[in-house]
Amino acid sequence: MTTDVHPKEIAISFQIQGKTCKMGAMCKGGGMISPNMATMLLFITTDVAISPALLQKALSADVKDSVNMLSIDRDTSTNDTMCIMASGLAENPPITEANQDFRIFCEALHSVTISLCRTVAKEGAGATKLIECRVSGANSKKSARMLSKAVVSSSLVKTMMFGCDPNVGRILCALGYAGVQFDPKRVDIVFRSAAGEITVCQDGVVLSFDELRAKEILSQAEVYLDVELHGGRATATAFGCDLSYDYIKINGDYRSK
Amino acid sequence: MTTDVHPKEIAISFQIQGKTCKMGAMCKGGGMISPNMATMLLFITTDVAISPALLQKALSADVKDSVNMLSIDRDTSTNDTMCIMASGLAENPPITEANQDFRIFCEALHSVTISLCRTVAKEGAGATKLIECRVSGANSKKSARMLSKAVVSSSLVKTMMFGCDPNVGRILCALGYAGVQFDPKRVDIVFRSAAGEITVCQDGVVLSFDELRAKEILSQAEVYLDVELHGGRATATAFGCDLSYDYIKINGDYRSK
Repeated sequence: MTTDVHPKEIAISFQIQGKTCKMGAMCKGGGMISPNMATMLLFITTDVAISPALLQKALSADVKDSVNMLSIDRDTSTNDTMCIMASGLAENPPITEANQDFRIFCEALHSVTISLCRTVAKEGAGATKLIECRVSGANSKKSARMLSKAVVSSSLVKTMMFGCDPNVGRILCALGYAGVQFDPKRVDIVFRSAAGEITVCQDGVVLSFDELRAKEILSQAEVYLDVELHGGRATATAFGCDLSYDYIKINGDYRSK
Repeated sequence: MTTDVHPKEIAISFQIQGKTCKMGAMCKGGGMISPNMATMLLFITTDVAISPALLQKALSADVKDSVNMLSIDRDTSTNDTMCIMASGLAENPPITEANQDFRIFCEALHSVTISLCRTVAKEGAGATKLIECRVSGANSKKSARMLSKAVVSSSLVKTMMFGCDPNVGRILCALGYAGVQFDPKRVDIVFRSAAGEITVCQDGVVLSFDELRAKEILSQAEVYLDVELHGGRATATAFGCDLSYDYIKINGDYRSK
């Protein structure tokens, strides 16, 4: 049995030294997803000419802000795979050092992996929506990653997102136990989606905001939780989904299907 | 709103140097429970005569194997409390050093805290059963604690327990990502409850066991997952509960109540 709702695929093209290069990728997975060190089924192909060392370097750097920032259920699988293959058929001058061409390649790679991470999260087991938490103003990249991942991984945040319930305390709580030092008195939080945005917390104080308006914003298929810490310049984004009755059905009752 | 099903209380008595001493405790909480460094609402009283330093020492030692081994939803609350008060009214010779009397006191304290941890887990938000995972044969106490806590915290283990589904792979998976070194080829796993016990994994191989019998064992109100690693002498037990539709209802829909 698989919990995939749709095939997860993406293809893009980009220019390196006048040559059109292509990149395609596909992945699978809906549950038991909380990648750690590039783990899940994710295959990327490209026709770029690039040395194996730089290809590995690009992938290893990329996973820190893509698949390692993704969590459906905090259940890291022990047998997932992410791999990239480059054929060189694009006939660009082979990339053999970390120059501008390499940066273009890394950006293309990142657009592919982030796109798939968002799809995996949005179509997570039983999920009704994508949750993206962007933490900015952190004192280090590592802190920003830990904080944003704590928010999207929290069962209480995930259930409140399922219920479209603007319970700001649960977000502050998840930030609080993430294991990172920050000043709670400077935290701003904004809920954002296709329906608009609303500031729900400023300088660490939960505002008396319009709950119905907040509910409307949280009811969309893609919801963004923006957290500004005012404590530095580091930023990170984590990808997750809500926790619904269907997650329980899929993972607790699946044999009866 | 509280998610407590019943009051959580316990009272015991024990002997120190011929004097009958008493200890009572109560606590609350059903969700946002994954204590870290003695966090939750838990109050303990005793009439034992004991120095404040030793009272603190007993409590600090105790939490490592009691409340810090408890998780309902991995959502550590930022404002929980555990405290102990000793009046000295039992008139035992005051305990002022870590002697045999202190050990009797620590054992009494542990019986109280473990009892409440089991109650908190069993009555966790939406829970239908207590899950206790005992890991033995680990190479260190810390490893044993991390492994057992990973198992009871896994959403996939918790949903399989809700569905009474003997999916041994999910337990092996949680052990695998706990961040501890052990030999997967030596792992034995036994499911145990009031309905009996069944060995489901031996030397790391999932056995072809009687699934209906396993389901019957997992259907009880208290289920024990015994994991033997054959890699050392350390042991630890973690306390958790299953993840049910009602957890989603309580935490996703609670404002409509």
